[in-house]
Amino acid sequence: MDPVSELFVATGNEHKMVELRRLFPGIALRLPRELGESGRFEETGETYLDNALGKALHLYRGLGRPALADDSGLEVPALGGEPGVYSSRYGAVAGRKLADADRNALLLEKARELEDRRCRFVCCMVVVLTEVRFLVVQETCEGLLAAGPRGEGGFGYDPIVWLPERGVTVAELSDPEKDEVSHRGRAARRLLALLAAGRARG
Amino acid sequence: MDPVSELFVATGNEHKMVELRRLFPGIALRLPRELGESGRFEETGETYLDNALGKALHLYRGLGRPALADDSGLEVPALGGEPGVYSSRYGAVAGRKLADADRNALLLEKARELEDRRCRFVCCMVVVLTEVRFLVVQETCEGLLAAGPRGEGGFGYDPIVWLPERGVTVAELSDPEKDEVSHRGRAARRLLALLAAGRARG
Repeated sequence: MDPVSELFVATGNEHKMVELRRLFPGIALRLPRELGESGRFEETGETYLDNALGKALHLYRGLGRPALADDSGLEVPALGGEPGVYSSRYGAVAGRKLADADRNALLLEKARELEDRRCRFVCCMVVVLTEVRFLVVQETCEGLLAAGPRGEGGFGYDPIVWLPERGVTVAELSDPEKDEVSHRGRAARRLLALLAAGRARG
Repeated sequence: MDPVSELFVATGNEHKMVELRRLFPGIALRLPRELGESGRFEETGETYLDNALGKALHLYRGLGRPALADDSGLEVPALGGEPGVYSSRYGAVAGRKLADADRNALLLEKARELEDRRCRFVCCMVVVLTEVRFLVVQETCEGLLAAGPRGEGGFGYDPIVWLPERGVTVAELSDPEKDEVSHRGRAARRLLALLAAGRARG
């Protein structure tokens, strides 16, 4: 296998792109619009894998170039796993998504009476290299729902996920600290290891 | 999600088809040739996932109907994981595969001096339900390389994989016993659970 020097990324989320560029320092991450593709893909899957693999395959077919996609969410077991795979659309009305802060407030309100405040971020990350070469990983980051939002870093649910062993929310971590413990950081390191293993074999 | 009542299976291996029909009793497993498709697909992947997902996607695209594929192999860690993903082609010359018995003899010969005779069957099983619905599982069955082939059941490497807790090779198990412990049996049960979970949600 040739070394992978660039990957097209199926995302419209700029925050995610910034994180991904930190997490894949040796690989040029490019956006589909650089090749005139919208990369738009409706995330209608029922699992993180459905969405990540669906996005990556769609982009791979459109461009004929190696494609990376991730799908992630926050699960609260005491809420039956909500918001889960619907995390980014949580509380959306008529397809109109809430702003991060409003979504966080909504989830904390629903969780107000919960004794079991455990939660976990999940990230499924997929690379489609060719018609018959796929890399799939799924990783988690365990925490507790905070009493209220704290911290300015990160994005999404980061301000309301408190990490007991660090005593801060994910949004209070520096970028390198977040990458070390986050679901997306763990997934990226496993993907990089798989890419490196393929390179060694090829 | 509608209940899945039938799946097209990407395989040319009749032994595998017999096992799969036992393992998915509530689902009609059909062969692509019933719809005039060859279902032929060259397994050139570097991982079980590459082959299983590649086969299932290829079949799904050809038929536009839900497709099931599995890829499996036997790994001997002391032989660097061989034969692994190349299990069915192990010892092949110019693309001509060996008969099961010859392949087993070849592997036992290579393993003759090994102290660490641990081995494991691996099965990756994939269902492609729609463009954005994928089920992927991977399961193992742990054993030890036998001194010589024993048993008439099963197929492939079954006669040379000895199960310490049962005191027999996989080929000496009855069909229901094999299904209970085998990599393919475990994978099928996890897939059925995922299919049932999807049905409950939908």
